[in-house]
Amino acid sequence: MKTVYSADHSLRNAKTELYGGQLVTPFECPERMEYVLKRVGETGLGEVIPPGKFGMKHILRIHDPGFVEFLEHCWEEWQEVGYEGEAIPTIIPARGMQQRIPEHIEGRLGYYSLAMETSISAGTWEAALASAHVALTAQNMVRDGLSSSFALCRSPGHHAAADMFGGYCFFNNAAICAQAFLDQGADRIAILDVDFHHGNGSQTIFYDRQDVMYLSLHGDPRHAFPHFLGYGDERGEGPGEGFNYNYPMPPGTSYPVWAEALDDACAKIAHYAPDALVVSLGVDTYERDPISFFKLRSEDFTDYGNRLAKLGLPTLFIMEGGYAVEEIGINTVNVLAGFEGV
Amino acid sequence: MKTVYSADHSLRNAKTELYGGQLVTPFECPERMEYVLKRVGETGLGEVIPPGKFGMKHILRIHDPGFVEFLEHCWEEWQEVGYEGEAIPTIIPARGMQQRIPEHIEGRLGYYSLAMETSISAGTWEAALASAHVALTAQNMVRDGLSSSFALCRSPGHHAAADMFGGYCFFNNAAICAQAFLDQGADRIAILDVDFHHGNGSQTIFYDRQDVMYLSLHGDPRHAFPHFLGYGDERGEGPGEGFNYNYPMPPGTSYPVWAEALDDACAKIAHYAPDALVVSLGVDTYERDPISFFKLRSEDFTDYGNRLAKLGLPTLFIMEGGYAVEEIGINTVNVLAGFEGV
Repeated sequence: MKTVYSADHSLRNAKTELYGGQLVTPFECPERMEYVLKRVGETGLGEVIPPGKFGMKHILRIHDPGFVEFLEHCWEEWQEVGYEGEAIPTIIPARGMQQRIPEHIEGRLGYYSLAMETSISAGTWEAALASAHVALTAQNMVRDGLSSSFALCRSPGHHAAADMFGGYCFFNNAAICAQAFLDQGADRIAILDVDFHHGNGSQTIFYDRQDVMYLSLHGDPRHAFPHFLGYGDERGEGPGEGFNYNYPMPPGTSYPVWAEALDDACAKIAHYAPDALVVSLGVDTYERDPISFFKLRSEDFTDYGNRLAKLGLPTLFIMEGGYAVEEIGINTVNVLAGFEGV
Repeated sequence: MKTVYSADHSLRNAKTELYGGQLVTPFECPERMEYVLKRVGETGLGEVIPPGKFGMKHILRIHDPGFVEFLEHCWEEWQEVGYEGEAIPTIIPARGMQQRIPEHIEGRLGYYSLAMETSISAGTWEAALASAHVALTAQNMVRDGLSSSFALCRSPGHHAAADMFGGYCFFNNAAICAQAFLDQGADRIAILDVDFHHGNGSQTIFYDRQDVMYLSLHGDPRHAFPHFLGYGDERGEGPGEGFNYNYPMPPGTSYPVWAEALDDACAKIAHYAPDALVVSLGVDTYERDPISFFKLRSEDFTDYGNRLAKLGLPTLFIMEGGYAVEEIGINTVNVLAGFEGV
């Protein structure tokens, strides 16, 4: 399997994440990519290639133009005010407030955010853009006939909504690629999200559509981020009803229970018969992940890669979360190697 | 004029405010009260008396019971998770998300907040409760026939909505007192909010009602907190239409322009003929306030206190903001002395 990768991800190197009322070094850090890249090399998974150029066309099929413009200029506008830290929202359009877009960067930052842990800093825009292009390059490879490819994306994407960032995500790489497949002639795409966290962005983007099925296995939002989405009764709406499936699972969930949910999701995907499968591949389901609560062991990742292969679908893997940094390479590549039956 | 004051405000002594992407010492600090109290004494404004006991009855006429329960237990629940900082929200029920109340304290903290600068820490509940009781004690004095009284409240209140805290505010003291006047037989109450910031909480609480008129002079929300409310076209809705007046003013506004807006607001209050006037008294309109942008000088506060007296209404002054700590006493007492014609 080929891996697409850009060193430009390291342009995003935020110093602060708001966690537990403190500003800590972000869990979503550049070192994550080094461990995955190293493991890809060690295991001989396949060639590592750089992204192509794609411009904004595919991104703007998913994201609001005002949001994109905000992301591009946020850091410079924030600095112009004279703020000394990284850009973190302090005010939001809460219940009973206007949903207008304010002029002041403090207001716009709040308008375009859904969470506050993720600060915007120098290089965030460049890294997020490179990440989307990494995803699109890998998507093109599958479109052109490869049975699978791996987009080693950073920043991750599945929390990003059409017009909001948060949860370490800016552009929704999986959604952008699903839409690209459709725009290039596909009829149906399935997104299977195996990241520990519910992909609220991916869900909301396609919630009223039946040309993209979204299925997610994740920590129950009653106990886990993003708290306000990912419940089991969210099934889609309008024409999209019946094309959204959530599998929230409780703290301590181990592989047998998780794999049962995966098999159920795979059966739904098989029945849907999509032209391609996009896997939002987060490995924060790992037992030693510092901010999650599932109990998958490294060998479980190999097993579920193998189960995914049995769908027999053209498959695009897109890197999402995973914060047990030293094991992220092993767990990620285990999925891909398991998929290849290595 | 009598002042009501409780030393319990100092139980709230948060160490962190999220400002410009950094955790700084809060602008809304206990020392503010010391300066006001000192000036009250120096000028011989009148007796300083402690608050009476009021329980929760009046508070629950304004605030959601779930919100009140959350405020009471937030700090202990936050600590039980093992978080090491003060409680600051990181996730909100953003556009497209469920508006359900999550179980996890991280989720509930986001559900019940409208801004992220204000951390909840040990003593916050006790101080907020004491502040509401200070306000109600001063309200009772006016109800019982005094022509005016001063509630030296901390925490302030005008940003707090029925079910959300933020902007340094937890209980909306002005709203609680306006409702108390009505419950005790008044027909109409006017709240005049002269704090630099729009009192979004007070506005939303009474937005569809005509028994409380809300009028606010403040920094234009296009440039100032709370950014998402306080625009000039917000006039009330339903039966409340025509009973909400906002006077947003641009950066650099000095007293002649501000006083013109005040006179217009006073004319509307006179026409409304309320049984009593509640003044949300923030003095962050001061020219050297560190987080605001109006240009009032200390003598202007005396002048506008005098203008307020000309309404000839029973008047309850409730302390709100003001962050130029050393001058907060002078400016606050100038308003009260100006009102008394001293």
